Amino acid sequence: MNALTVFSDLALSGAALDLLRNTVLPHRLIEARRPTTSVLAKADADPAFATAEIAFGQPDLDHIRASDRLRWIHLTSAGFTRYDTDSFRGFARERGLVVTNSSRVFAQPCAEHVFSFLMAQSRCLPAQLASRTPNGSAEWLHLRAIPRSPRGQHVLILGFGTIAQSLLPMLAPFDMKVTALRRQPRGDEGVQVITPDQLASVLPTVDHVINLLPDNPASRGFVDATFLAALKPGCVFYNIGRGTTVDQAALDASLRSGHLAAAWLDVTDPEPLPDSHPLRSAPNCFITPHTAGGHHREAESLVRHFLGNLERFTTGRSLLDRVI
Amino acid sequence: MNALTVFSDLALSGAALDLLRNTVLPHRLIEARRPTTSVLAKADADPAFATAEIAFGQPDLDHIRASDRLRWIHLTSAGFTRYDTDSFRGFARERGLVVTNSSRVFAQPCAEHVFSFLMAQSRCLPAQLASRTPNGSAEWLHLRAIPRSPRGQHVLILGFGTIAQSLLPMLAPFDMKVTALRRQPRGDEGVQVITPDQLASVLPTVDHVINLLPDNPASRGFVDATFLAALKPGCVFYNIGRGTTVDQAALDASLRSGHLAAAWLDVTDPEPLPDSHPLRSAPNCFITPHTAGGHHREAESLVRHFLGNLERFTTGRSLLDRVI
Repeated sequence: MNALTVFSDLALSGAALDLLRNTVLPHRLIEARRPTTSVLAKADADPAFATAEIAFGQPDLDHIRASDRLRWIHLTSAGFTRYDTDSFRGFARERGLVVTNSSRVFAQPCAEHVFSFLMAQSRCLPAQLASRTPNGSAEWLHLRAIPRSPRGQHVLILGFGTIAQSLLPMLAPFDMKVTALRRQPRGDEGVQVITPDQLASVLPTVDHVINLLPDNPASRGFVDATFLAALKPGCVFYNIGRGTTVDQAALDASLRSGHLAAAWLDVTDPEPLPDSHPLRSAPNCFITPHTAGGHHREAESLVRHFLGNLERFTTGRSLLDRVI
Repeated sequence: MNALTVFSDLALSGAALDLLRNTVLPHRLIEARRPTTSVLAKADADPAFATAEIAFGQPDLDHIRASDRLRWIHLTSAGFTRYDTDSFRGFARERGLVVTNSSRVFAQPCAEHVFSFLMAQSRCLPAQLASRTPNGSAEWLHLRAIPRSPRGQHVLILGFGTIAQSLLPMLAPFDMKVTALRRQPRGDEGVQVITPDQLASVLPTVDHVINLLPDNPASRGFVDATFLAALKPGCVFYNIGRGTTVDQAALDASLRSGHLAAAWLDVTDPEPLPDSHPLRSAPNCFITPHTAGGHHREAESLVRHFLGNLERFTTGRSLLDRVI
């Protein structure tokens, strides 16, 4: 096996950096002079990039196109919007370039994040934690009466990938009815799967909509005013996919009218939302700052996932989480 | 079957009241002139109480002792501290008086409440929901890094009754190690059970302590400074049992020293804690106002549970949730 050159633009330190440096051997590791700190930022140009067969991180499209050595890109995100174009897919196919992402690393934390939203909503935690009311008061009787068990409720999951697969076992103890929307059902989902043309008949029956959609031309604005109006009054909406998949003005209107009971958003458009954005003051709108995939020792998880795929790459096996 | 008289001091209206009035027939229902609004308040005297064979609610000890007709008390709470004395148990035994509680009604909501605490803690929701930081900031990197999956963590449950039994299935998808403390293990708990003398060896190994202990002479101050000091640094403490089971000064000190990572309390002593109480400003101390057992249509659940037991009582079968 020839030694390969890996270019990494991931900001690493401590145990994660040691793990990468030590385990990548006998291959060469080139660390970007200015690592990226966010998966959504554009990487800086680095002349050493052109010497690498493998890119680990968030390589820039122009740098990729300029390289004649690159064979495999392992992205440190689950999202891959900037690579998900006909133009880039055509280029990759022509050049024999493979792209993998890190969806396995983020699936469990993302599922736990949105599930924590669902449990917090079920027990009305924001209102409960804000209250100091005595037993027996009118406020107390109200706070006692508003929690609703997820038991037997109906949840619609938009997008059926690794996050949904990680989420299903968490929902199982509550005997929830689960329906998943998938453009191309495979039959092995283990839950009822519908396609977009069946959506209209399902929306009026669901208690929770969990949006896991990535950003792409087909998903942009998918959750629009018509979608929201078709939901049962009192439904709860969750988004840990991408902010662009939702018509935020329609979401705001639905919350303010009381039609939607609450929205829990880890993603918005833009991020963060300005303080003056209507959703910042919409009733029962709870926002986390795009942290659903985060977890203790995330960098080590990313490095470990890459190293596993590197082992597969060098031994000619199929790569995990291949997206292109 | 002779028609019996049921005295109810539960504040009911709407569907729950209709359900009780209609289903209690052919028995007589006497509704207290001034229903109790809190299970912790003392009921008013009502001369009609003396005519009842059955009391449904939170009857006063003096009224119970003064009645020579009373045969069965069905409490509308899970807690039954005021009846749980040697003196009252002796009186009940002598008089053939049976006491049941509503623990089945509250087990699922209580389990969901403390489980929502655990999930919110795992994803650090209070800090995440308060942040408006942009992707890539130092604050953002911190918020991404602090969530810890419950997967594989060790949870110690203090008290193994209906709430613990409802909680176990929710923990199962996370492959948590579960240990339960029970004074008198029965062998059918389905998890590792320890007795108080084995506590010292377990405390340094647990990531979460879930306190479900009721208030009684043996449990008062059970979670004290020695208990807390024996825990692993970074452990999280939850209490939905009773506030009196915890030395709150020791809890406050443990939070302020950073030894405990967080405390999630639905019960305190007193309730509510005054605004000036140290725990109100202790770091990572999250408090809900004794609402863990509350749920949508709680009154109907209570009535339905009582009516099920009434059917058992009149047909000579053993009652559910008998405590005395």
